[in-house]
Formats: sequence, C-alpha cells, structure tokens
Amino acid sequence: MDLSVLVSSIQSFEGVVRKESIEKITDKLKDVYNVAGDTLLNFGDDASAIDLGDNKLILFAADGIWGKLMDIDPYWAGYCSILVNVNDIAAMGGKPIAMVNIISINNDEITDDLLDGIKDGCKKFNVPMVGGHLHPDADYNVLDVAIVGTAEKDKIITSFGANVNDKVLVAIDLDGRQHPNFALNWDTTYLKDAKIVQNQIKAMRELGEKGLVTGGKDISNPGTIGTLEMLLESSGVGASIELEKIPRNKNVNWEDWLKSYPGAGFVLTTKEENIDEIINILKEVSITTAVVGDVIEEKKLFLSYGNETLVVFDQEKNPVLNIKS
Amino acid sequence: MDLSVLVSSIQSFEGVVRKESIEKITDKLKDVYNVAGDTLLNFGDDASAIDLGDNKLILFAADGIWGKLMDIDPYWAGYCSILVNVNDIAAMGGKPIAMVNIISINNDEITDDLLDGIKDGCKKFNVPMVGGHLHPDADYNVLDVAIVGTAEKDKIITSFGANVNDKVLVAIDLDGRQHPNFALNWDTTYLKDAKIVQNQIKAMRELGEKGLVTGGKDISNPGTIGTLEMLLESSGVGASIELEKIPRNKNVNWEDWLKSYPGAGFVLTTKEENIDEIINILKEVSITTAVVGDVIEEKKLFLSYGNETLVVFDQEKNPVLNIKS
Repeated sequence: MDLSVLVSSIQSFEGVVRKESIEKITDKLKDVYNVAGDTLLNFGDDASAIDLGDNKLILFAADGIWGKLMDIDPYWAGYCSILVNVNDIAAMGGKPIAMVNIISINNDEITDDLLDGIKDGCKKFNVPMVGGHLHPDADYNVLDVAIVGTAEKDKIITSFGANVNDKVLVAIDLDGRQHPNFALNWDTTYLKDAKIVQNQIKAMRELGEKGLVTGGKDISNPGTIGTLEMLLESSGVGASIELEKIPRNKNVNWEDWLKSYPGAGFVLTTKEENIDEIINILKEVSITTAVVGDVIEEKKLFLSYGNETLVVFDQEKNPVLNIKS
Repeated sequence: MDLSVLVSSIQSFEGVVRKESIEKITDKLKDVYNVAGDTLLNFGDDASAIDLGDNKLILFAADGIWGKLMDIDPYWAGYCSILVNVNDIAAMGGKPIAMVNIISINNDEITDDLLDGIKDGCKKFNVPMVGGHLHPDADYNVLDVAIVGTAEKDKIITSFGANVNDKVLVAIDLDGRQHPNFALNWDTTYLKDAKIVQNQIKAMRELGEKGLVTGGKDISNPGTIGTLEMLLESSGVGASIELEKIPRNKNVNWEDWLKSYPGAGFVLTTKEENIDEIINILKEVSITTAVVGDVIEEKKLFLSYGNETLVVFDQEKNPVLNIKS
C-alpha cells in the first residue's frame, strides 16, 4: 500500500472538504452563540451545551441528511437521521432525550420509506421523535433532525479537552457490514440487537461519568482521521498516529475504512492510566478500542505506516474545521 | 363587509390549507413519539414536552421558513426563523434556552443577509444560536431552526386544556406595521425595544406560572382564526366568537388581519374569573387582549358579525390539523 496515495485521498475526500464552508457561518454567528450567557460549548463540538445551573446541562445538536442519500435510499436516510443525532449526544457522554424533524418533500412516493426509516431508528435507539415541521410544497427533498440530551456539567466529554501527551484511541464496532447501497456506511446497528446498540450509547456515558477520557468525538462524515483532526483542532493540539493500530474489519480496505461513517465509532483521548478501563467498558458492548498514537504540541496530524510518516492535516495549511474562536 | 366572503377566504387560505398534509406524518410517527415513556405532549402543540422528573420539562420545537420568504427577503427569513421559534416556547409558558439551525444554500449571495437576520433575531429575543448544520452544496435554499426551552410541569400552557364554557381570548400587540415585503407579517418586534419584546415572552410565562389560562397557542401561519381552530381541535371542543371583538389595528383590513402572522399574538382560553388579571399582565407589555367568545361543546368554530353567524371550521368536515390521536 502506498501511504502517500492514501493520504492524498483522505485530504481530498468529500466528507472532509465540505466541512470547509461552515467557516463563514460560524464566523458570522459567533456573536450570538452566547447572548444569554449560559452557553458552554460552541461550534466545533458534536453538540452544544447550555448550563441550566445545579450541574445540569442541556445538550443540543442538529444534523441534516445528504441529499443524495435521500434520493437513493429514503428508508436508510430516515434511519441514519436518527443514528447520527443519537451519536452526537453519545459522543458527549450525554443521555439522548428527544428529537424533532423538519422534512421537505417534493416526491410523495418517498415519504413512506423515509418515515419508516425514522420510525425504526427511533425504536432501535429508544429515543422519541416528538415533533417537527413539514414543508409540503417543496421542490426538493431534505431531512433535518435536531436532538436534545442531558448531561452533568462536570461529566461531559468534549472535543476541547485533549492535552499534549494524552494517548489517542480509536474505538469502533467491528461487527458490521458495508451498507449495500453505501459502501462508506459501516453499518453496525441495523442488524444488531437494540439492547446492545442502546448499551453502546450508555457505555459512552459511563466513560464520561467516570472521567476516563479527556476528549471524544463520534466518527462522522469526515471519517476516522478527519474526525480526529476536528477534535485536535478544537483542542488546539496535534497528534502522531500509526495506521496499522487503527481497529479495522479486515473485509474493508484501508481507504474505504478510513472514510467510513461507522454506526458506533469514536475517537478518544485519555491519560495512559485509563486505557485499560476504557477498553474493557467498550469491549462489553461490541466496540474494539486501540491506542493508535499520541497527542503532540505541533498542530499537525502525522500518520505512519511501516517506516514512512506523512502529514495528513496541518492546522496552518489544510485544517478541516478551521473555526476561529 | 360580507361575512361569507371573509369566511370562505379564511377557509381556503394557504396558511390553513397547507397544514393538512402533516396528517400523513403524524399518523405514521405516532408510534415513536413516546418510545422512551417520558413524552408528555405530542404533535399538535406548539412545542413538545419531555418529562425530566422533579417537575422539570424540556420543551422542544422546530420550524422551517417558507421557501418564498427566503427568496424574496433572506434577511427577514433569518429574523423570522428566530421569532417563530421563540414564540413556540412562549406560547407554552416556557423559557427559551437555545436554538440550532440547519441551512441549505445554493446561492452564496443570500448567505450574508440570512445570517445577519438570524443574528439580529437572537439579539432581539436574547436567545443564543448554539450550533447547526450546513448543506453547502444544496440546489435549494432552506432554513430550519429548532429550539429548546424549559418549563415546570405543573405550569405549562398547552393546546389541550380548553374546557367547555371557558372564555376565548385573543391577545395581540397592535403597535406594529405590515412588513414592507410581506403584508401578512404583522411585525411588532423589529422596530420595538428589545426589552419590551423579551418582556412579552416573560409575560406569557407569568400567565403559565400563575395558572391563569386553560389553553394557549401562538398565532402563526394559519392566522388568528386558523390558530384558534387548531387549539380547539387539540382540546376536542368548539367555540363561538364575534368578529368585531378581536383586537385589531384599524390600518389593516379584516381579511389581511385575520391571515396575519403577528410578532406577538396568542389565542388563549380561560375561566371567567381570570380575565382581568390576564388583560392587565399583557397590557404591561404592549399586548391588547379581549374576550372574543366562548368555548362550546359542539366541535365547530362559529364566527358572528352583526346579526349573521357562519361556521368557519367544522372538525368533521374541514378541520385544520386533523390529527388522530
């Protein structure tokens, strides 16, 4: 395998590149993310956190579904809208409470499939869809879902806490399949017992409650390395990792694997002494965790394979998030 | 004025008619609105309520902005996305806590105006925009916003509590203007001091905290009478009201007025003994309230003008919400 080919493929991956355009929005709205004075976390984390006092937080996130997913497989689009939102709360060590949806439909034929997918997702993750808004006369199909969760202030997992010399962990459920219509969807939930799936969310909460990690983020569209880079950017650090230490299902080649959106997958940072406990907690719920490298001061993400080491992301030159705080 | 012309204009009004298509969605998703067992209110209220225990509720709502509003005046679309969401929480007697947005943009030129509108809305209502999701490569413009609020379980205002023999009140801020681009936007907030606007939201909370109303809903796209009908449907009752008792700014004709979306406007139901206190609380914040009729058992909405009385909505024949619970 040629590391430089792999690295440039990750750098130019759509899931990474399309993150760039959020810069304009975050830049403009940073004025109002905290007008009332209670917002703890801002753009850049999986969910925002609002302080209700008494150590109670509300977590709040929103995710839209890519248009092409809607067009090709509306059922799966509906199901994934639940999955991605629940994972946003799980990645923060929170408890998912409820979701709302906003649906634009130009094609009545897909509505049934879309709603069936949403329904099955809610049942799988045991999170209710409590309301929504419909644009019935749209000339496009869009599915947006927002989720609210709760957490305790001193126990959340954020993207901002990784420290130099922390260990970098990648945790992924390897028991899954490439989705028949979308090879980059590493589906680990659809065919799995709901109990295990729900326990995966709870396991992340346990990591938060026990204070075992310094940082964490759910692996999403930018893939494993792109997501790690987002965490590093939010924390203002870099990392040096080894490709072959990343847990992988051997049926999937590296390029697909690193670009995949797993049903249950997280990048974590932690102090060395907590590694074993984290690995054990996640192992109980079908998630394989491995130390893949170290957090470093230099704001670059180095990837090694054999004797070769390349820079995948450099926060000066090609950041993923590029959020100015 | 010809009452029958007015009534048929309300019956066929786009803001009323387009509500019909939500039936398919609510029908399908009613299975999963309460999968976890903590959902108190369902589709049909301005916001859903989730029980956190200890008398604490999370209120959760979502609203999308009509495409044509985005195209004609993106700034105003951004501003209104805040207004409509905040009013959803206000109508429940809740405290707005935070919002997230999901934006699809096909036209970079409108982005700045849209974001400026969002920003000014957040400042006006003092509610933060804490995050969001962007579809950067959309071939359409859509703005969706979701809001979360808090309330105490025994103090919320719902659409489900109106009782036969309650009085029907309409409460509207008459100090405003028809928006230059949208005659049916009765804008009462944009030119008004932020303090008064924020106090209007708090005044609704006071009505809830003091237990002064049995039902309430913010006047939205279906206009004053369409919104009242939604409240009546949710409560399983009807009403008999008199046109000329509805508070109105005399610069606007009845047809426009009844179809308008006011910046601060609510339909309320209450017991007779609380009327004066409600009127006084709302008067303090520039909202004019009047008794317009009575809640009745027959599931119809009767509108009287002079000696004439007509049925505007009949829950058997032409309901607005038509939600089967």
